[in-house]
Amino acid sequence: MRTKTPLQADKILRVAARLFATHHFHQARREDIAAAAEVGKGTLYRYFKDKEELYLALLERAAEGLSSRLVELETLALGPRDRLEAMVESLISFFDEHPHLFDLIQHAEVMSSHDQEIPWNRTRQETVARLRKVLEEGEELGLFRVADPELSVLLLLGGIRAVLRFGQQPRPPDLARQIVACFLQGHGTPACSLAS
Amino acid sequence: MRTKTPLQADKILRVAARLFATHHFHQARREDIAAAAEVGKGTLYRYFKDKEELYLALLERAAEGLSSRLVELETLALGPRDRLEAMVESLISFFDEHPHLFDLIQHAEVMSSHDQEIPWNRTRQETVARLRKVLEEGEELGLFRVADPELSVLLLLGGIRAVLRFGQQPRPPDLARQIVACFLQGHGTPACSLAS
Repeated sequence: MRTKTPLQADKILRVAARLFATHHFHQARREDIAAAAEVGKGTLYRYFKDKEELYLALLERAAEGLSSRLVELETLALGPRDRLEAMVESLISFFDEHPHLFDLIQHAEVMSSHDQEIPWNRTRQETVARLRKVLEEGEELGLFRVADPELSVLLLLGGIRAVLRFGQQPRPPDLARQIVACFLQGHGTPACSLAS
Repeated sequence: MRTKTPLQADKILRVAARLFATHHFHQARREDIAAAAEVGKGTLYRYFKDKEELYLALLERAAEGLSSRLVELETLALGPRDRLEAMVESLISFFDEHPHLFDLIQHAEVMSSHDQEIPWNRTRQETVARLRKVLEEGEELGLFRVADPELSVLLLLGGIRAVLRFGQQPRPPDLARQIVACFLQGHGTPACSLAS
Protein backbone atom coordinates (compact mmCIF):
# COMPACT_ATOMS: atom_id res chain seq x y z
CA MET A 1 0.00 0.00 0.00
CA ARG A 2 1.40 3.35 -0.99
CA THR A 3 2.15 5.90 1.73
CA LYS A 4 -0.08 8.84 2.42
CA THR A 5 1.53 12.27 2.48
CA PRO A 6 0.27 15.28 4.44
CA LEU A 7 0.88 17.37 1.32
CA GLN A 8 -1.47 15.29 -0.81
CA ALA A 9 -4.10 15.14 1.94
CA ASP A 10 -3.86 18.89 2.14
CA LYS A 11 -4.34 19.30 -1.60
CA ILE A 12 -7.40 17.06 -1.56
CA LEU A 13 -8.91 19.04 1.29
CA ARG A 14 -8.25 22.38 -0.40
CA VAL A 15 -9.90 21.16 -3.58
CA ALA A 16 -12.82 19.60 -1.72
CA ALA A 17 -13.39 22.83 0.20
CA ARG A 18 -13.59 24.75 -3.08
CA LEU A 19 -16.03 22.20 -4.50
CA PHE A 20 -18.28 22.16 -1.46
CA ALA A 21 -18.38 25.95 -1.59
CA THR A 22 -20.37 25.78 -4.81
CA HIS A 23 -22.02 22.35 -4.50
CA HIS A 24 -24.01 21.02 -1.59
CA PHE A 25 -22.72 17.91 0.11
CA HIS A 26 -25.13 15.55 -1.61
CA GLN A 27 -24.45 17.11 -5.03
CA ALA A 28 -20.64 17.04 -4.86
CA ARG A 29 -19.35 13.77 -6.31
CA ARG A 30 -16.21 11.97 -5.19
CA GLU A 31 -15.20 11.60 -8.83
CA ASP A 32 -15.18 15.37 -9.21
CA ILE A 33 -13.12 15.85 -6.07
CA ALA A 34 -10.62 13.25 -7.23
CA ALA A 35 -10.40 14.80 -10.69
CA ALA A 36 -10.00 18.34 -9.37
CA ALA A 37 -7.28 17.18 -6.95
CA GLU A 38 -5.61 15.34 -9.84
CA VAL A 39 -5.62 12.02 -8.03
CA GLY A 40 -7.31 8.73 -8.84
CA LYS A 41 -10.48 7.64 -7.05
CA GLY A 42 -8.45 4.90 -5.37
CA THR A 43 -6.01 7.44 -3.94
CA LEU A 44 -8.87 9.61 -2.66
CA TYR A 45 -10.34 6.52 -1.04
CA ARG A 46 -7.05 5.74 0.73
CA TYR A 47 -7.08 9.17 2.35
CA PHE A 48 -10.78 9.44 3.13
CA LYS A 49 -12.81 6.28 3.10
CA ASP A 50 -16.11 8.03 2.36
CA LYS A 51 -17.60 11.46 1.77
CA GLU A 52 -18.52 11.68 5.44
CA GLU A 53 -14.90 11.25 6.51
CA LEU A 54 -13.80 13.87 4.00
CA TYR A 55 -16.42 16.21 5.35
CA LEU A 56 -15.34 15.79 8.95
CA ALA A 57 -11.70 16.32 7.98
CA LEU A 58 -12.68 19.56 6.26
CA LEU A 59 -14.57 20.70 9.32
CA GLU A 60 -11.64 19.91 11.57
CA ARG A 61 -9.30 21.78 9.28
CA ALA A 62 -11.56 24.83 9.37
CA ALA A 63 -11.87 24.59 13.15
CA GLU A 64 -8.08 24.61 13.49
CA GLY A 65 -7.82 27.55 11.10
CA LEU A 66 -10.24 29.66 13.11
CA SER A 67 -8.64 28.71 16.43
CA SER A 68 -5.15 29.62 15.28
CA ARG A 69 -6.40 32.97 14.00
CA LEU A 70 -7.96 33.75 17.37
CA VAL A 71 -4.83 32.56 19.19
CA GLU A 72 -2.77 34.97 17.09
CA LEU A 73 -4.95 37.85 18.25
CA GLU A 74 -4.16 37.03 21.86
CA THR A 75 -0.52 37.87 21.27
CA LEU A 76 -1.42 41.45 20.31
CA ALA A 77 -1.36 44.16 22.96
CA LEU A 78 -4.94 45.41 22.73
CA GLY A 79 -7.41 46.82 25.21
CA PRO A 80 -10.59 44.79 25.79
CA ARG A 81 -12.75 46.80 23.40
CA ASP A 82 -10.23 46.76 20.58
CA ARG A 83 -9.64 43.08 21.23
CA LEU A 84 -13.36 42.41 21.03
CA GLU A 85 -13.53 44.28 17.72
CA ALA A 86 -10.53 42.37 16.38
CA MET A 87 -12.14 39.06 17.34
CA VAL A 88 -15.44 39.98 15.68
CA GLU A 89 -13.52 41.11 12.61
CA SER A 90 -11.62 37.80 12.55
CA LEU A 91 -14.82 35.77 12.81
CA ILE A 92 -16.45 37.72 10.00
CA SER A 93 -13.49 37.49 7.66
CA PHE A 94 -12.85 33.82 8.42
CA PHE A 95 -16.41 32.77 7.59
CA ASP A 96 -16.51 35.03 4.54
CA GLU A 97 -13.28 33.41 3.31
CA HIS A 98 -14.76 29.94 3.91
CA PRO A 99 -18.26 30.26 2.48
CA HIS A 100 -18.82 26.49 2.65
CA LEU A 101 -18.26 26.42 6.42
CA PHE A 102 -21.89 26.94 7.44
CA ASP A 103 -22.90 24.04 5.22
CA LEU A 104 -20.17 21.88 6.75
CA ILE A 105 -21.30 22.64 10.27
CA GLN A 106 -24.99 22.23 9.48
CA HIS A 107 -24.39 19.02 7.64
CA ALA A 108 -22.36 17.59 10.51
CA GLU A 109 -25.08 18.60 12.96
CA VAL A 110 -27.87 17.10 10.88
CA MET A 111 -25.99 13.85 10.30
CA SER A 112 -24.68 13.33 13.82
CA SER A 113 -26.92 11.79 16.42
CA HIS A 114 -27.94 13.90 19.40
CA ASP A 115 -25.34 12.47 21.75
CA GLN A 116 -22.43 12.43 19.31
CA GLU A 117 -19.84 15.20 19.45
CA ILE A 118 -19.16 17.02 16.21
CA PRO A 119 -15.68 18.46 15.70
CA TRP A 120 -17.00 22.02 15.55
CA ASN A 121 -18.44 21.98 19.08
CA ARG A 122 -15.06 22.32 20.72
CA THR A 123 -14.20 25.33 18.55
CA ARG A 124 -17.53 26.91 19.44
CA GLN A 125 -16.91 26.39 23.16
CA GLU A 126 -13.39 27.76 22.86
CA THR A 127 -14.63 30.82 21.01
CA VAL A 128 -17.29 31.41 23.68
CA ALA A 129 -14.58 31.13 26.37
CA ARG A 130 -12.27 33.55 24.54
CA LEU A 131 -15.02 36.14 24.16
CA ARG A 132 -16.06 35.73 27.80
CA LYS A 133 -12.49 36.39 28.87
CA VAL A 134 -12.41 39.68 26.96
CA LEU A 135 -15.70 40.78 28.51
CA GLU A 136 -14.40 39.92 31.94
CA GLU A 137 -11.20 41.88 31.32
CA GLY A 138 -13.29 44.88 30.34
CA GLU A 139 -15.29 44.50 33.53
CA GLU A 140 -12.16 44.32 35.68
CA LEU A 141 -10.84 47.49 34.08
CA GLY A 142 -14.21 49.19 34.68
CA LEU A 143 -14.73 49.74 30.95
CA PHE A 144 -18.06 47.94 30.75
CA ARG A 145 -20.26 45.87 32.96
CA VAL A 146 -21.57 42.57 31.68
CA ALA A 147 -24.01 40.95 34.07
CA ASP A 148 -24.27 37.59 32.39
CA PRO A 149 -21.22 37.01 30.14
CA GLU A 150 -22.43 33.59 28.98
CA LEU A 151 -25.75 35.01 27.74
CA SER A 152 -24.08 38.07 26.23
CA VAL A 153 -21.52 36.03 24.33
CA LEU A 154 -24.19 33.71 22.92
CA LEU A 155 -26.23 36.71 21.77
CA LEU A 156 -23.14 38.23 20.15
CA LEU A 157 -22.00 35.06 18.41
CA GLY A 158 -25.47 34.11 17.21
CA GLY A 159 -25.98 37.64 15.97
CA ILE A 160 -22.75 37.52 13.97
CA ARG A 161 -23.85 34.21 12.47
CA ALA A 162 -27.13 35.74 11.25
CA VAL A 163 -25.35 38.76 9.78
CA LEU A 164 -22.91 36.47 7.97
CA ARG A 165 -25.67 34.28 6.58
CA PHE A 166 -28.33 36.84 5.76
CA GLY A 167 -26.64 40.25 5.91
CA GLN A 168 -25.79 42.43 2.94
CA GLN A 169 -22.79 41.70 0.74
CA PRO A 170 -20.27 43.18 0.28
CA ARG A 171 -19.95 43.82 4.02
CA PRO A 172 -20.08 47.44 5.20
CA PRO A 173 -16.45 48.53 5.77
CA ASP A 174 -16.87 49.13 9.50
CA LEU A 175 -19.08 46.14 10.29
CA ALA A 176 -17.09 44.75 13.23
CA ARG A 177 -16.80 48.16 14.88
CA GLN A 178 -20.52 48.78 14.44
CA ILE A 179 -21.48 45.37 15.84
CA VAL A 180 -19.33 45.88 18.92
CA ALA A 181 -20.57 49.45 19.50
CA CYS A 182 -24.20 48.33 19.27
CA PHE A 183 -23.49 45.27 21.39
CA LEU A 184 -21.82 47.19 24.22
CA GLN A 185 -23.82 50.42 24.10
CA GLY A 186 -27.17 49.24 22.81
CA HIS A 187 -28.97 49.19 19.47
CA GLY A 188 -31.42 51.81 20.67
CA THR A 189 -28.83 54.43 21.58
CA PRO A 190 -27.04 57.17 19.63
CA ALA A 191 -23.71 55.42 20.36
CA CYS A 192 -24.75 52.60 18.04
CA SER A 193 -26.07 55.06 15.46
CA LEU A 194 -22.84 57.05 15.47
CA ALA A 195 -20.82 53.91 14.88
CA SER A 196 -22.36 53.38 11.47
CA MET B 1 -58.45 5.66 -4.18
CA ARG B 2 -59.59 6.61 -0.71
CA THR B 3 -59.98 10.26 0.13
CA LYS B 4 -57.49 12.14 2.25
CA THR B 5 -58.82 14.05 5.23
CA PRO B 6 -57.19 17.12 6.81
CA LEU B 7 -57.78 15.52 10.21
CA GLN B 8 -55.75 12.46 9.37
CA ALA B 9 -53.00 14.51 7.75
CA ASP B 10 -52.91 16.58 10.90
CA LYS B 11 -52.60 13.53 13.10
CA ILE B 12 -49.74 12.16 11.01
CA LEU B 13 -47.92 15.49 11.21
CA ARG B 14 -48.38 15.74 14.98
CA VAL B 15 -47.00 12.24 15.45
CA ALA B 16 -44.13 12.83 13.04
CA ALA B 17 -43.20 16.04 14.83
CA ARG B 18 -43.00 14.15 18.13
CA LEU B 19 -40.88 11.45 16.53
CA PHE B 20 -38.47 13.85 14.86
CA ALA B 21 -38.07 15.63 18.19
CA THR B 22 -36.28 12.58 19.59
CA HIS B 23 -34.90 10.99 16.40
CA HIS B 24 -32.88 12.67 13.72
CA PHE B 25 -34.32 12.69 10.23
CA HIS B 26 -32.20 9.83 8.96
CA GLN B 27 -32.94 7.73 12.06
CA ALA B 28 -36.73 8.15 12.06
CA ARG B 29 -38.36 5.38 10.02
CA ARG B 30 -41.57 5.72 8.06
CA GLU B 31 -42.81 2.48 9.62
CA ASP B 32 -42.53 4.04 13.07
CA ILE B 33 -44.37 7.17 11.99
CA ALA B 34 -47.16 5.09 10.43
CA ALA B 35 -47.42 2.89 13.53
CA ALA B 36 -47.47 5.82 15.94
CA ALA B 37 -50.12 7.58 13.84
CA GLU B 38 -52.12 4.32 13.76
CA VAL B 39 -52.25 4.25 9.97
CA GLY B 40 -50.90 1.75 7.48
CA LYS B 41 -47.73 2.46 5.50
CA GLY B 42 -49.90 2.73 2.37
CA THR B 43 -52.02 5.45 3.97
CA LEU B 44 -48.95 7.36 5.07
CA TYR B 45 -47.65 7.10 1.51
CA ARG B 46 -50.90 8.53 0.11
CA TYR B 47 -50.49 11.64 2.25
CA PHE B 48 -46.74 12.13 1.93
CA LYS B 49 -44.99 10.36 -0.88
CA ASP B 50 -41.60 10.29 0.86
CA LYS B 51 -39.89 11.36 4.06
CA GLU B 52 -38.75 14.54 2.35
CA GLU B 53 -42.33 15.58 1.61
CA LEU B 54 -43.34 14.82 5.18
CA TYR B 55 -40.47 16.92 6.41
CA LEU B 56 -41.39 19.90 4.26
CA ALA B 57 -45.02 19.65 5.39
CA LEU B 58 -43.86 19.70 9.01
CA LEU B 59 -41.73 22.75 8.35
CA GLU B 60 -44.60 24.55 6.66
CA ARG B 61 -46.89 23.71 9.56
CA ALA B 62 -44.36 25.12 12.03
CA ALA B 63 -43.90 28.24 9.90
CA GLU B 64 -47.66 28.86 9.93
CA GLY B 65 -47.79 28.28 13.68
CA LEU B 66 -45.12 30.87 14.37
CA SER B 67 -46.62 33.39 11.95
CA SER B 68 -50.06 33.16 13.49
CA ARG B 69 -48.62 33.63 16.96
CA LEU B 70 -46.83 36.79 15.84
CA VAL B 71 -49.97 38.03 14.05
CA GLU B 72 -51.91 37.61 17.30
CA LEU B 73 -49.45 39.86 19.08
CA GLU B 74 -50.12 42.61 16.58
CA THR B 75 -53.72 42.84 17.78
CA LEU B 76 -52.55 43.73 21.31
CA ALA B 77 -52.27 47.37 22.32
CA LEU B 78 -48.62 47.50 23.33
CA GLY B 79 -45.93 50.13 23.19
CA PRO B 80 -42.90 49.34 21.00
CA ARG B 81 -40.69 48.11 23.82
CA ASP B 82 -43.34 45.86 25.34
CA ARG B 83 -44.19 44.63 21.87
CA LEU B 84 -40.55 43.81 21.22
CA GLU B 85 -40.39 41.89 24.50
CA ALA B 86 -43.59 40.03 23.67
CA MET B 87 -42.23 39.08 20.25
CA VAL B 88 -38.95 37.83 21.71
CA GLU B 89 -40.91 35.91 24.33
CA SER B 90 -43.08 34.34 21.60
CA LEU B 91 -40.06 33.30 19.57
CA ILE B 92 -38.41 31.70 22.59
CA SER B 93 -41.49 29.82 23.72
CA PHE B 94 -42.39 28.70 20.20
CA PHE B 95 -38.98 27.17 19.54
CA ASP B 96 -38.83 25.65 23.02
CA GLU B 97 -42.24 24.05 22.41
CA HIS B 98 -41.02 22.71 19.04
CA PRO B 99 -37.59 21.33 19.88
CA HIS B 100 -37.36 19.55 16.52
CA LEU B 101 -37.72 22.80 14.58
CA PHE B 102 -34.02 23.65 14.33
CA ASP B 103 -33.36 20.20 12.91
CA LEU B 104 -36.19 20.65 10.41
CA ILE B 105 -34.82 23.99 9.24
CA GLN B 106 -31.21 22.79 9.09
CA HIS B 107 -32.17 19.64 7.29
CA ALA B 108 -34.16 21.58 4.71
CA GLU B 109 -31.26 23.98 4.20
CA VAL B 110 -28.72 21.18 3.84
CA MET B 111 -30.90 19.21 1.42
CA SER B 112 -32.07 22.08 -0.74
CA SER B 113 -29.86 23.36 -3.50
CA HIS B 114 -28.51 26.88 -3.23
CA ASP B 115 -31.10 28.44 -5.51
CA GLN B 116 -34.13 26.57 -4.21
CA GLU B 117 -36.45 28.27 -1.75
CA ILE B 118 -37.13 26.46 1.48
CA PRO B 119 -40.50 27.07 3.16
CA TRP B 120 -38.91 28.58 6.23
CA ASN B 121 -37.30 31.48 4.35
CA ARG B 122 -40.56 33.37 3.98
CA THR B 123 -41.26 33.07 7.70
CA ARG B 124 -37.78 34.33 8.46
CA GLN B 125 -38.24 37.32 6.17
CA GLU B 126 -41.66 38.07 7.66
CA THR B 127 -40.25 37.90 11.18
CA VAL B 128 -37.44 40.26 10.21
CA ALA B 129 -40.02 42.67 8.74
CA ARG B 130 -42.21 42.52 11.86
CA LEU B 131 -39.28 43.25 14.15
CA ARG B 132 -38.12 46.09 11.90
CA LYS B 133 -41.56 47.65 12.11
CA VAL B 134 -41.46 47.65 15.91
CA LEU B 135 -38.01 49.25 15.92
CA GLU B 136 -39.22 51.90 13.50
CA GLU B 137 -42.28 52.61 15.67
CA GLY B 138 -39.99 53.08 18.66
CA GLU B 139 -37.89 55.47 16.64
CA GLU B 140 -40.92 57.51 15.53
CA LEU B 141 -42.04 57.83 19.15
CA GLY B 142 -38.51 58.91 20.14
CA LEU B 143 -38.12 55.91 22.46
CA PHE B 144 -34.99 54.58 20.87
CA ARG B 145 -32.83 55.24 17.84
CA VAL B 146 -31.88 52.38 15.59
CA ALA B 147 -29.45 53.43 12.90
CA ASP B 148 -29.56 50.28 10.81
CA PRO B 149 -32.75 48.31 11.59
CA GLU B 150 -31.89 45.50 9.18
CA LEU B 151 -28.53 44.86 10.86
CA SER B 152 -30.00 45.23 14.35
CA VAL B 153 -32.82 42.78 13.66
CA LEU B 154 -30.41 40.20 12.24
CA LEU B 155 -28.19 40.53 15.32
CA LEU B 156 -31.20 40.16 17.60
CA LEU B 157 -32.69 37.16 15.80
CA GLY B 158 -29.37 35.37 15.41
CA GLY B 159 -28.63 36.02 19.06
CA ILE B 160 -31.95 34.50 20.12
CA ARG B 161 -31.20 31.47 17.97
CA ALA B 162 -27.87 30.90 19.74
CA VAL B 163 -29.47 31.30 23.18
CA LEU B 164 -32.17 28.80 22.23
CA ARG B 165 -29.67 26.28 20.92
CA PHE B 166 -26.86 26.63 23.41
CA GLY B 167 -28.23 28.60 26.36
CA GLN B 168 -29.05 27.20 29.77
CA GLN B 169 -32.21 25.18 30.39
CA PRO B 170 -34.63 25.75 32.01
CA ARG B 171 -34.69 29.31 30.70
CA PRO B 172 -34.22 32.12 33.23
CA PRO B 173 -37.71 33.48 34.05
CA ASP B 174 -37.06 36.95 32.65
CA LEU B 175 -35.08 35.94 29.58
CA ALA B 176 -37.03 37.96 26.98
CA ARG B 177 -36.96 41.12 29.11
CA GLN B 178 -33.25 40.72 29.68
CA ILE B 179 -32.49 40.13 26.00
CA VAL B 180 -34.44 43.24 24.98
CA ALA B 181 -32.88 45.41 27.71
CA CYS B 182 -29.37 44.35 26.69
CA PHE B 183 -30.24 44.71 23.02
CA LEU B 184 -31.60 48.25 23.33
CA GLN B 185 -29.36 49.60 26.07
CA GLY B 186 -26.18 47.59 25.56
CA HIS B 187 -24.55 44.56 27.09
CA GLY B 188 -21.83 46.69 28.64
CA THR B 189 -24.16 49.02 30.56
CA PRO B 190 -25.80 48.86 34.00
CA ALA B 191 -29.23 48.86 32.29
CA CYS B 192 -28.53 45.38 30.96
CA SER B 193 -27.10 44.29 34.32
CA LEU B 194 -30.15 45.55 36.20
CA ALA B 195 -32.47 43.66 33.89
CA SER B 196 -31.15 40.34 35.05
